[in-house]
Amino acid sequence: MPRAQREQQMLDAAVMIFSRSGYHAASMDEIAEACEVSKPMLYLYLGSKEELFAACIRREADRLIAAFAGAADPGLAPGDQLFHGLTAFFAFVAEHRDSWVVLYQQARAQGEPVVEDVASARREVVSAVTALLRRAVREADLPGPRPGEGPDRGEAAAMAQVIVGAADALAGWVLDTGPEPPEETARRLMSVIWIGLEPRLRGARYGD
Amino acid sequence: MPRAQREQQMLDAAVMIFSRSGYHAASMDEIAEACEVSKPMLYLYLGSKEELFAACIRREADRLIAAFAGAADPGLAPGDQLFHGLTAFFAFVAEHRDSWVVLYQQARAQGEPVVEDVASARREVVSAVTALLRRAVREADLPGPRPGEGPDRGEAAAMAQVIVGAADALAGWVLDTGPEPPEETARRLMSVIWIGLEPRLRGARYGD
Repeated sequence: MPRAQREQQMLDAAVMIFSRSGYHAASMDEIAEACEVSKPMLYLYLGSKEELFAACIRREADRLIAAFAGAADPGLAPGDQLFHGLTAFFAFVAEHRDSWVVLYQQARAQGEPVVEDVASARREVVSAVTALLRRAVREADLPGPRPGEGPDRGEAAAMAQVIVGAADALAGWVLDTGPEPPEETARRLMSVIWIGLEPRLRGARYGD
Repeated sequence: MPRAQREQQMLDAAVMIFSRSGYHAASMDEIAEACEVSKPMLYLYLGSKEELFAACIRREADRLIAAFAGAADPGLAPGDQLFHGLTAFFAFVAEHRDSWVVLYQQARAQGEPVVEDVASARREVVSAVTALLRRAVREADLPGPRPGEGPDRGEAAAMAQVIVGAADALAGWVLDTGPEPPEETARRLMSVIWIGLEPRLRGARYGD
């Protein structure tokens, strides 16, 4: 078996074991056994347990971003792009529960470079969502100052945080309470953020 | 100094050291030094490092819930209650950055009982927000089936997840990008979730 393929199998096994046993309780013995290689080969290919965990996080973060970004067809309207991206995200989490656990529960408590890798993946998603929101504002062709262009330049970035944070929470909720079609979860979130978007784009603020 | 007061000082020091050094790197020596007690006294009062961390998480989770719930005056309309609760939450995070770090970054990767304490605190907040949303639906006195009463009983719970997840993300964003008045952060979130609420309560769904 080529080395690259063998390494992917090792990462599959490591993500599963880290997710189920927790980072500290997981042992290199268990991981080697799960992917049917010798422990020396595991160390040779992917380094220490710390390095192996870091490699898992980089791969899972990349896969999650690829799932989200790959679904957001740039030819679509911003709202549809976001809806498709969110649907792909919820589908990814449903299919890769172990990836979710290592990325969302375990990685945050590790040191560098893991924390920075997760933060950087998150920034990438937030930045893609921010760009979609800015495009929605431009295409709405509204009169008067627009969010993100007027005095409050942070508004689109803040709303992207709302969307990404809400998506994280909904993904965890679905894992806890039982599966539903990923489009249904995406629709729940879109209903909250997209209905009422037009008055918000026109400058309506809560409490005004 | 009475024991209860001394314990609070130990917890203050422990939250600070856990937050700044990370759970695994933090030492009982450092914590004892930071609160100016002997290490045996620290162990006698609050147990092992694991028990001390669990006690920190319970206290910080209780404080966060108390801040949120204490601000949500039941005499107010649901939207105002939520706005005040969110403002208090963002103020708490701004004033207690170390509490935030232990609760949101470190606790998730620990074993039981810490993970369950955090999950239970989160359920309590989600459940308070769900009740506010249900009250908003009842008071809106709308015709036709209502979210949470019709076939989709999960809608209010899902929206509460959206709000709590979004609040978490915005709190982290403010810590990263620089302070702003807590009411301003709460207003950003309320503008997303409360504008457009009426059409949603009338049954409007994204994509229909």
